[in-house]
Parts: sequence; C-alpha cells; structure tokens
Amino acid sequence: RINGDRLWDSLMEMAKIGPGVAGGNNRQTLTDEDAEGRALFQKWCEDAGCTMGLDQMGNMFARREGTDPEALPVYVGSHLDTQPTGGKYDGVLGVLGGLEIIRTLNDLDIKTKHPIVATNWTNEEGTRYAPAMLASGVFAGMHTQDWAYDREDAEGKKFGDELNRIGWRGDEEVGARKMHAFFELHIEQGPILEAEGKDIGVVTHGQGLNWTQITVTGKDAHTGSTPMPMRKNAGLAMARILEKVDEIAWSHSPHAVGAAGHIDVYPNSRNVIPGKVVFTVDFRSPDLDVITDMVNRLRVAAEDIVEEMGLQIEFEKVGGFDPVTFDEGCVKAVRDAAERLGYSHTDIISGAGHDACWINRVAPTAMVMCPCVDGLSHNEAEEISKDWAAAGADVLFHAVVETAEI
Amino acid sequence: RINGDRLWDSLMEMAKIGPGVAGGNNRQTLTDEDAEGRALFQKWCEDAGCTMGLDQMGNMFARREGTDPEALPVYVGSHLDTQPTGGKYDGVLGVLGGLEIIRTLNDLDIKTKHPIVATNWTNEEGTRYAPAMLASGVFAGMHTQDWAYDREDAEGKKFGDELNRIGWRGDEEVGARKMHAFFELHIEQGPILEAEGKDIGVVTHGQGLNWTQITVTGKDAHTGSTPMPMRKNAGLAMARILEKVDEIAWSHSPHAVGAAGHIDVYPNSRNVIPGKVVFTVDFRSPDLDVITDMVNRLRVAAEDIVEEMGLQIEFEKVGGFDPVTFDEGCVKAVRDAAERLGYSHTDIISGAGHDACWINRVAPTAMVMCPCVDGLSHNEAEEISKDWAAAGADVLFHAVVETAEI
Ligand SMILES: NC(=O)NCCC(=O)O
Ligand SMILES: NC(=O)NCCC(=O)O
Repeated sequence: RINGDRLWDSLMEMAKIGPGVAGGNNRQTLTDEDAEGRALFQKWCEDAGCTMGLDQMGNMFARREGTDPEALPVYVGSHLDTQPTGGKYDGVLGVLGGLEIIRTLNDLDIKTKHPIVATNWTNEEGTRYAPAMLASGVFAGMHTQDWAYDREDAEGKKFGDELNRIGWRGDEEVGARKMHAFFELHIEQGPILEAEGKDIGVVTHGQGLNWTQITVTGKDAHTGSTPMPMRKNAGLAMARILEKVDEIAWSHSPHAVGAAGHIDVYPNSRNVIPGKVVFTVDFRSPDLDVITDMVNRLRVAAEDIVEEMGLQIEFEKVGGFDPVTFDEGCVKAVRDAAERLGYSHTDIISGAGHDACWINRVAPTAMVMCPCVDGLSHNEAEEISKDWAAAGADVLFHAVVETAEI
Repeated sequence: RINGDRLWDSLMEMAKIGPGVAGGNNRQTLTDEDAEGRALFQKWCEDAGCTMGLDQMGNMFARREGTDPEALPVYVGSHLDTQPTGGKYDGVLGVLGGLEIIRTLNDLDIKTKHPIVATNWTNEEGTRYAPAMLASGVFAGMHTQDWAYDREDAEGKKFGDELNRIGWRGDEEVGARKMHAFFELHIEQGPILEAEGKDIGVVTHGQGLNWTQITVTGKDAHTGSTPMPMRKNAGLAMARILEKVDEIAWSHSPHAVGAAGHIDVYPNSRNVIPGKVVFTVDFRSPDLDVITDMVNRLRVAAEDIVEEMGLQIEFEKVGGFDPVTFDEGCVKAVRDAAERLGYSHTDIISGAGHDACWINRVAPTAMVMCPCVDGLSHNEAEEISKDWAAAGADVLFHAVVETAEI
C-alpha cells in the first residue's frame, strides 16, 4: 500500500503555491506560480532518485529506472496547472499519485522490469490557452507544436513565449517517447461515485467534447437615445443563444451536457448596447452522434436568431475530442487492482477531458477515479478525503506495478 | 455667426488625443489621455484670454470677464471624456462650442454684461466610474464628494486617487459657483433630427434613467462532469433576465428603452459553469412612473427566474436620475435663436443623460442639439457634418449672448 499521509502532505504542500481566494488554487498554466509548482515537483522527484526529462512543450517526465534496459516505460501522471478558481486535487492528485508510487517502490525496495515515469502535462485546463489538454494533444500528434506555440491568452501573450518566459521549455522532441502504457489517477469531478458509495471508478470511456467559439456582431449604440427598433444588440442575441444551448443539451440529458463558461462583451460599458459578444459553447456526450447533433442544431438555431435580429455571426471550433474507449488490458489492470485491494468500485465514463484521452491514441491507457465531495470541481471548494486519495493511489500503484512487472 | 472652420479644426485636433481603434476616441475619464485633452483645452482657453478655474472634482471653468462685476456668469459646456469606443463629438462639441463662442466674441470685440464660462465636467460618460455625470452631480449636490472619490473602476482604482494621479484636482469647493444660466450643446445621439431633416433640436425635456446592477450567484462547477440537473448556472439566469429586460422595455416602447451594456462573467473559463455574473440594466423613459414600473417588473421577474433555478440574486442601484424639464426661459432663448438664424428646428426630448440634467437643478438650464448620422453614438463611427456643428454652435452663441446681455 502507498503512504496516504505522505501523499496528503504533498498535496497540501503543493496547494500552498498559487493559492486562490477561497481555499483553492489559481495556478494557471505558464504563470510564475506554475513555474514554482514545477520546481517543487522536480525537487521531490530528484529526492526520490528520478531523472527529469523536459520536452519542448514543457511536459515533465521523472524516470525511475527498470531492470530491463529494453523495456518501454510505464507512464503515470496528470497535470499541475489549475483553473483560475480551481481546486487542490484536479490534476495534482494524479501527478503526486505518480510520485507516491515511486516513493513507495523505493520504501519497499521493489525493482520493476519496465521503468516508471511520473509525468506532468502542460496546460491541461485550457483556461488560459484553448484547447484543453494542449500539450498531451501535441504529444499524441493531434496538434502541431507550431500551432500550439501560437495560441494566445486573453492578453494576446503566446503560449510559446510564455513557456520560454517561465523557463520550462525543454529540448526534447515532443511525442518521441514510446510508452508501454499510461495510467492517470484523477478525481471524478462529478457526483456518481459518492452517490453510489464507491471508493473507485474504473474508467472505461471518456465523453467527447466540442468547443465552439461564437462571435455575434451587432452595432455599438447609445442605450438611452437609440430607439428599440433600431438596436442591434449582440448581448441580447447571445442571451437567446444561451437559452438554446441549454434546451439542446437537456434534449439529450443525461447523455449530454452543455453550457457557456466564457463570455466577453464589447465594449462592456453600461450605456453602450453591446456591439460584439464572443463566447464559447461547451457541448459533451459519450456519443459522437449526439455531439454532432447538438453542434448542428445550435448552429441553425443561432443563425435564425441573429438573422431575425439583423446581426452577424461567426463560429470557430476552438477545442474538441471524440469520445474515448480506454484500453481493455489497462482497464482490467485497474479493475483487478481495486478488486484485489478490497475497494468497492464501479465502471464509469469520464465526464471531463483528461490527458489520458489523448495519450490513449498512442499507448494503451486507462484511468482510476476517486470520488469528490458533492461532485464539485472547477471550484475552489473542491474537496476529497484523505482516504479517497489513498484508495485511488493504492489502485494506481497496483495497476502500474502489475503492468511494469516486478 | 461663429467660425465653423475653426470649430471643426479644434474638434479634429482634440480627436488626436486618445485615438480609438476605428476612427473614434478612447479618452476615458482620469486617464493620461484625459489629462492631455484637458491641457490642450486649457491652453486654447488661455490663448483666448480666459482664466481657468479648477474645482476639487476636476471640473474646469474658463472665464471670460463681463462688464458688470456684480453679474453672475452664464456657463456653457459639456465634457471631454469619451466612451472606450466612443466618437469624436459626444461631449467634445459642447466644450469646444463653448470655447468657440468666446473666440467669436473676441473676434467681434463684443463685451457681455455677464461673464461667460466655458466648462468641462469630469466623468460624464460613467463607463470607468458609475454613475454617469458624476462631477456635475456632485456640483448640483446630488452626491457627496467623498462618495464620488470612493467610486472604483473595474481594477479597483478609486476616482479620488486617479484624479490626483493625473494632476487635475483643484482646490475650489465643488458647487460653490453660482450661475446665471447654463447652456449645453450636444449631438442628439439618436435618429430623430436627421429623420425629420431638422438642423436644431430645442431640448425641452430629458429622459430619466435607472441603472440597476444585478449580481446572480450560482455555483462554479465543471461543464463536462456536472449533470444538467445539478447545475447552478448564473450565466443562464443572466440570459433569461436579459430577455425580460428586452420584453419589459418593448412593452413601453416608444416611451421607454432598456438594455444591459455591462456584463462580467466569473470565473470566465470555457470549462467552468459560471458561478457568478454581474451586469447592469439600463432602463430609461421620459416618464418616471414608467421607469419605476420597469424596474419593479424586472425585479419580480428576475427573482422568479433565479428562484426556479435555485440561485441567489442581489440588486444595487448604481445610477439614476429623474426625467428633467428644462428652464422655460432658457429653452425659449434657444428656440428664438434658431428661429432668428433661420435654422429648421423642433422641440425634442433628450434620450441620453447630460451634465445639463443635473445643473438644471441649481441654475436655469437648456440644451441645443444637432443631428448625428444614423443616430449613431457611443460608437467610433459616430459622425456629424461641419455644417451641423456650426449650426448648433451658432444657436448656442446667440442663446448665450442674449442671456449674457451685451
Ligand atoms: N479534468 C479537467 O477538468 N480537464 C479540463 C478539460 C475539460 O474541460 O474537461
Ligand atoms: N450623453 C451621454 O452619452 N451621456 C452618458 C450618460 C448616459 O448614459 O446617458
């Protein structure tokens, strides 16, 4: 078994970097806080006898050697970046869970045939730079590195420049590494495990996602002196489109979800009718046809809305991945580990996107989930218990060690 | 008659300070650009032989002496600050129109019994600091100066601190000046004069306004893994309330208008269901009962919406003024001037708020309006013709000189 107290202490220690305003974290990707978190992770890995690799996307790879020089490593990890008002566990548990496995193997003086590599993927959250899972996506060949470097944050700062600025751009070619398998431990971020009283989610599938950025263009005009019939109110069109997003998502619920988290109104002045609104609609489902249906229906509905109002609209896909089926062998290793350790478990579909969803395309992959209180995530109040974290890391440990072979 | 070319040249010269991105201006109150615009106005006034007064709200008063030492001055002016994506004429025409009157009196070597004071009121627009017409409001005793100093912009910078920072806080007590009368020339910012082919609007009344800032609080949560029934989506509630704003305003149209220009979504991340939205609803009507009705109906409707969704809501009035009836004598002076000069004219109700609306409470006041192309304002594409500007300034000149007595 892993050392639950040590894992918890490390989680609390990492959470001191980039504290939020309400008990959580604001350690967004490629900020100074991200750099500080990376440095702490590197120190811990080196203290555990690992050597650190760093690729050109800033992905970190802490390697514990195996006994067979020919054997490909088993990778394990997640991400250290957080939402602007994020929790202490989303991503971090998976990275420090990977480290805890290595520490436990050291304690027990166990040597594995395959090396084990604890990994931190850059910009998983996708807040500062869309899309989410950007660096694991480049690793898996889904995006080019040049395209990723050119992504801009809200202030126009480029991903590549910021990666250089914080000093975490490595030399290693991205995606050159070959993996024997990849495992990711993550909090569920939804309510199912807690509601069903299960310790462990054996993740068999992942929902697919579509992010469509919508720009509605109307006409800036005075809120007081512009008669109602002359208005081209882009904010009102956005409101009507948001109502449609909700209606369309409900029409497929519980097999789909939809909402807009990002909304920018221009010029955002109390006495100016908004001439432009830019917002991003997030639709998800485990069924690709459902995602396609939602995206298409919204497009038609939104075009009708703006046409009737005499406005313009543009759609841009700024993120997306297809539903994922994880590797049968890796999933079985997770399920067997939970069974063997006596943890209650259930098969589950991930509602969120994860680095594992991309890595699954280039290596046999599976995920372990643990519950979180009230299913709440992407909120500073995100919470898990020490026992839940330990159970998740235990299952991860056994699945990884079985796959890495003693 | 005034010198239309000189007035136009001054307008174009001032427009070089704080240029916008699309041909207009971004010279928001208490920015470095505001300071630069003020300095240019001061220089022009001193060149025209005026002495400059400056009060503790940064209001500027350029005085041309009269012949009767006992006579109260006639004030004339408007504001030099602009919207973030504002036009070249909104406010500026009224300030430089005042200066043009003084220059013309100098050219013609005319002495008036009453002094004439060309005025620039601080923070008319209300974008950076709500409410609009802040400094004329303090002058008229509607707000205390301490309250005004404590107003904060979106970055938390206080009005008083920023006024000091740009070096335009004077020593003079605000509102100590007594006025014989006040006249303001302004572009209409609406479509009526152009549609009716009139050179001049004789402003008899001003619409009243209510700005209610609404804060809807839901719960930040993951857009992917939070089932639809568990969501507390503050952005969706905002969308529903915006639809009601429109519906309620239309129910009183053409005697009312309504919209929200300011919308801030938190944490504004693509994969976080908005836990909080802050937005400001702007309702206006020439009829106070209509404003009250709209505000009350929206409150009830918004409370129903959030209650049904299980969210919280707060309302805060962040701006407001009652409908205004301008001074009969001053209005007559404007109408007589237009008539005498042979300009076509019509009585009109101002759709926008103006410094004149507050000053009307402490001095006999009236306004002159000139058309603007397509009724467009609070837009960088705001446009007027040189002839329209000259006609407006001519009428202003005659109304002011008649009131100031030769
Ligand atoms: N796990 C997680 O929150 N990932 C961010 C990408 C997503 O929005 O699903
Ligand atoms: N004239 C003008 O645009 N004033 C700003 C205050 C208002 O919103 O009416």
